[in-house]
Amino acid sequence: MDKHQRIPDVVIKRLPIYLRYLDQLSSMDIETVSSQQMGDDLHLNPAQIRKDLSIFGDFGVKGMGYRVSDLSEKLRSILGLDKEISIILVGVGNLGAALCQYNRYQSPTTKIVGLFDGHPSKVDKTIGNMKVKPMEDMQEFVKENGVKMGIITVPAQAAQKVADQMIAAGITVILNFAPALLNVPEEVKVQNSDVTTELQALSYYL
Amino acid sequence: MDKHQRIPDVVIKRLPIYLRYLDQLSSMDIETVSSQQMGDDLHLNPAQIRKDLSIFGDFGVKGMGYRVSDLSEKLRSILGLDKEISIILVGVGNLGAALCQYNRYQSPTTKIVGLFDGHPSKVDKTIGNMKVKPMEDMQEFVKENGVKMGIITVPAQAAQKVADQMIAAGITVILNFAPALLNVPEEVKVQNSDVTTELQALSYYL
Repeated sequence: MDKHQRIPDVVIKRLPIYLRYLDQLSSMDIETVSSQQMGDDLHLNPAQIRKDLSIFGDFGVKGMGYRVSDLSEKLRSILGLDKEISIILVGVGNLGAALCQYNRYQSPTTKIVGLFDGHPSKVDKTIGNMKVKPMEDMQEFVKENGVKMGIITVPAQAAQKVADQMIAAGITVILNFAPALLNVPEEVKVQNSDVTTELQALSYYL
Repeated sequence: MDKHQRIPDVVIKRLPIYLRYLDQLSSMDIETVSSQQMGDDLHLNPAQIRKDLSIFGDFGVKGMGYRVSDLSEKLRSILGLDKEISIILVGVGNLGAALCQYNRYQSPTTKIVGLFDGHPSKVDKTIGNMKVKPMEDMQEFVKENGVKMGIITVPAQAAQKVADQMIAAGITVILNFAPALLNVPEEVKVQNSDVTTELQALSYYL
């Protein structure tokens, strides 16, 4: 099946949240969990959780709920997190450096393996344990390391150019923190993540 | 009407994206735009855009599309962005400091007005043009300034305590960057924003 056509993005976005929750349960030696309990803990509708998970098959055991280890293994496999994912980040300003540090401690599978910046003053700086490389090196690095995912943390006016360079190098999935709309070919997936947009959406709930 | 019951969160999240786009058009002196053009530029389905916007009334002019200024004004009003929104941020590590700097340049209406940190080494540091205050001052600050929105950028293990303190002070909307699930009363809105979760969801598209 063409999985990308059939599973809505909103469902995909919830899967890592389920996964983190299941990992927490697992660390507490809890072996099964009901959708009701998941819903209570995650502030989600249990019917929605059941519906989300049913897309991927039937993990529930009648009267027992879900087996934590089976379900988390399945989610990891669906998300492609059963192997390490290499990511590059372009734009090592405050935000880029912070995200890089932050992710390093949180996730063993989504791994930032290369840092790039177009500004000479940033090149050769060390962030975490990585040296920042010049943009000229990006294409070769991406190809050599088979990197498919990139994070953009450059200013808005530089974002499109960086996206174009990433895509030319072979990147197919972009997490864009620049407050700019990127023009990309249809086969490239862009997720915009922008604190200002989030704050503006949240102001609705005030 | 109880607007919070009737408009889905996914629609609300798209509104700031429409708004930014309309502001771009406006800066180029473009006065009208069709849903087709919006869809092309934003990589969204025009039918979805029409449906989203129809919730708030009929802004379209037959054969002309939407009037840019009317629509952006309406969106601003729906989101509550026609007035300034005061926000506090707790946790002035790398990420907190970066978000603070970043938002300062992007948004005139969502304004971070207070920075707090529980760690004595951070208190009295200056970020942008603001001094970091100790946690003990938060409650009074929030009450005096009528702040209703808070950003959490503390480590996971500190997040629940900070959320509790925010809610006790009168915060009703929280943007949480800590990779932790917060337990909050039903009337409090929490939006989790976590780069690791986003990367994990995106790995599905590789």
